[in-house]
Amino acid sequence: MSDVASRQPVGKKSTVSEERAREADHPSSQLVVFGADKPLHLDCGVDLSPFQIAYQSYGTLNADRSNAILICHALTGDQHVFNTHPVTGKPGWWQTLVGPGKPIDTDRYFVICSNVVGGCMGSTGPSSTNPATGKPWGLDFPVITIPDMVRAQAMLIDHLGITKLFAVVGGSMGGMQVLQWATAYPQRVFAALAIACGAKHSAQNIAFHELGRQAVMADPDWRQGRYFEHGTHPRRGLGVARMAAHITYLSDAALHRKFGRRLQDRDEPTFSFDADFEVESYLRHQGSSFVERFDANSYLYLTRAMDYFDIAADHNGVLAAAFLGTRTRFCVISFTSDWLFPSSEARAVVHALNASSARVSFAEITTDKGHDAFLLDEPEFFAISRAFLEAAASTHGLNSVS
Amino acid sequence: MSDVASRQPVGKKSTVSEERAREADHPSSQLVVFGADKPLHLDCGVDLSPFQIAYQSYGTLNADRSNAILICHALTGDQHVFNTHPVTGKPGWWQTLVGPGKPIDTDRYFVICSNVVGGCMGSTGPSSTNPATGKPWGLDFPVITIPDMVRAQAMLIDHLGITKLFAVVGGSMGGMQVLQWATAYPQRVFAALAIACGAKHSAQNIAFHELGRQAVMADPDWRQGRYFEHGTHPRRGLGVARMAAHITYLSDAALHRKFGRRLQDRDEPTFSFDADFEVESYLRHQGSSFVERFDANSYLYLTRAMDYFDIAADHNGVLAAAFLGTRTRFCVISFTSDWLFPSSEARAVVHALNASSARVSFAEITTDKGHDAFLLDEPEFFAISRAFLEAAASTHGLNSVS
Repeated sequence: MSDVASRQPVGKKSTVSEERAREADHPSSQLVVFGADKPLHLDCGVDLSPFQIAYQSYGTLNADRSNAILICHALTGDQHVFNTHPVTGKPGWWQTLVGPGKPIDTDRYFVICSNVVGGCMGSTGPSSTNPATGKPWGLDFPVITIPDMVRAQAMLIDHLGITKLFAVVGGSMGGMQVLQWATAYPQRVFAALAIACGAKHSAQNIAFHELGRQAVMADPDWRQGRYFEHGTHPRRGLGVARMAAHITYLSDAALHRKFGRRLQDRDEPTFSFDADFEVESYLRHQGSSFVERFDANSYLYLTRAMDYFDIAADHNGVLAAAFLGTRTRFCVISFTSDWLFPSSEARAVVHALNASSARVSFAEITTDKGHDAFLLDEPEFFAISRAFLEAAASTHGLNSVS
Repeated sequence: MSDVASRQPVGKKSTVSEERAREADHPSSQLVVFGADKPLHLDCGVDLSPFQIAYQSYGTLNADRSNAILICHALTGDQHVFNTHPVTGKPGWWQTLVGPGKPIDTDRYFVICSNVVGGCMGSTGPSSTNPATGKPWGLDFPVITIPDMVRAQAMLIDHLGITKLFAVVGGSMGGMQVLQWATAYPQRVFAALAIACGAKHSAQNIAFHELGRQAVMADPDWRQGRYFEHGTHPRRGLGVARMAAHITYLSDAALHRKFGRRLQDRDEPTFSFDADFEVESYLRHQGSSFVERFDANSYLYLTRAMDYFDIAADHNGVLAAAFLGTRTRFCVISFTSDWLFPSSEARAVVHALNASSARVSFAEITTDKGHDAFLLDEPEFFAISRAFLEAAASTHGLNSVS
């Protein structure tokens, strides 16, 4: 794992300072603080300033800075793609795909992943201090969008002295960011790998997110978002929200295969409200472990950002118009059992790219693992990702490590 | 609407008394109270006694008592099939299917629907008074099962002097009861119409129910189920549970058709956590209106009953064994967009019935309305139900109103 940003003087004004994150907070992340002269222009009309972005990087940036891959994380992901997570102690969330010799080869590419603005792992979000009050922002934090997240990433990439990314890669909310990168900064993205996502959030997806938000807000410990000041945390509400979301990340078939109707450590039902079925204790665990690592208000803001996402809406309802004239090469991947972002959503993106004469390949991976397949061991997905990036790297003149 | 039970002396012991429900509670329901000599033997091993069943009836029982149809209601349904609901003031929940000249023709059949045991519309449930304490049962109420519900219904049918039902009809949890009737009392059911259901609850369905229960139990106003004594009601938790369930009752396509990504009374997003999208305000309304008419603990108990349902498990895992030798004629109906009880679950029932040489017809109705289709205007569903019942009535010698 390299630390390119701190090794390379970036020649920015003094208002852009860089520092190691406090060891206690995010031991291995780097921080970039954007000062008063570098506000983040948000879609809601607010200029967010100051703000900071926490990121991880892996591998080495080559001499002509042409081998950078930006990974965009999903709703409850973060920048800890390939290192042990500082809070949970678990392996990085995409060690299946990223690492030496992996499809996103850290021996070959310089890999960056930043915590999204609105998040809770070091980048500015609702749990950050509001400079106007000296207290956590809470719900006074401005509502952010997927384009806002990407705008902040572009400022980070500028700061790192990278003009053009070799590739932008992400799944789910990360895939939304990939598509947004390709529409907002087509000249800065050579290749775009968008996985398990769509160009908009569907009504059903909005419904599930609203359910999650209402669960958080129903928890009295949420205290209108001011739980830090009250020393509380809406653990139960956030746990319920996570349970709901988690069901949508799996498929009916995967739940059946993993749990079926098996009882938990017993042969007979207890005729009670205990977690009799294995699937119940699994879900309860998903809920309770999540609240240890995630901020409730961030959950509200990031779900909202996904809900607002609709690329076509910004182009008079014509998705193809968003990609017109693009020279980026695309690979779009969906999973057959993903009902959160079904293949039909991916196909809509592919059809729009076709209509705008873009270079695009599309793969629908047969799996019963549901939406979460993009985080799991899916050899066909890995092989296609590797092949797409290798072909793109070849065209981009990245045949060897520089 | 007739009142056959009060017109016909039923010759039961004095411990079985019948009375009009208190006008203020359930103005139009009849009650049967089963006393100490008529306990309800529950699957959990408890004998529930005394207990009462509230029911509605429509039409006239013929002289040989051969034209009775029992309708079994769904999770959040009740006995008010065809009359104005006493709490909501809305039309009966199955007026689409039931009434004079309708497929379940009240000019021809004597139609009964009772509130399930564990419910909250007059039948004994967790909000009833525990005779041992003089306080509401709360979570001291024994856990009930679908077979328990059916056992109570059989006692009601006995009480009404009906030996054999012409038909048992129901959708969703009601359909589970239909299947249970056919396996527990095959001689007492001439025809069984099971709609949008299965012979077990899937892992995904258990997961959604567990999510709902956790939402209720996370609400501090639930107070370990003792909210009546504290003068509270877990409105927010129950509302969240209802929101979650309601999403599963619709289909992605139906949500898209009804709401899409339309904003609520505005052209531009507010960039807030208000119900910007129509689907959000719809869901919030579903949640808040539900808590006005439903008891939170009943919701826990009835979801639990569905989770425990697994006919095959009671027959060494062989579903066909449950129906062996049956003379009941079956009609099983599923809806293409129902993802709560997908057609595969219905087909499993049909295959088991075929394997046990039962008379069965199966119809898969093409619709985008999801699970809720069984409550909605679905002409093909009505036509098939009518045809099935008419053919059965003809065989049963019910060609004319007696």
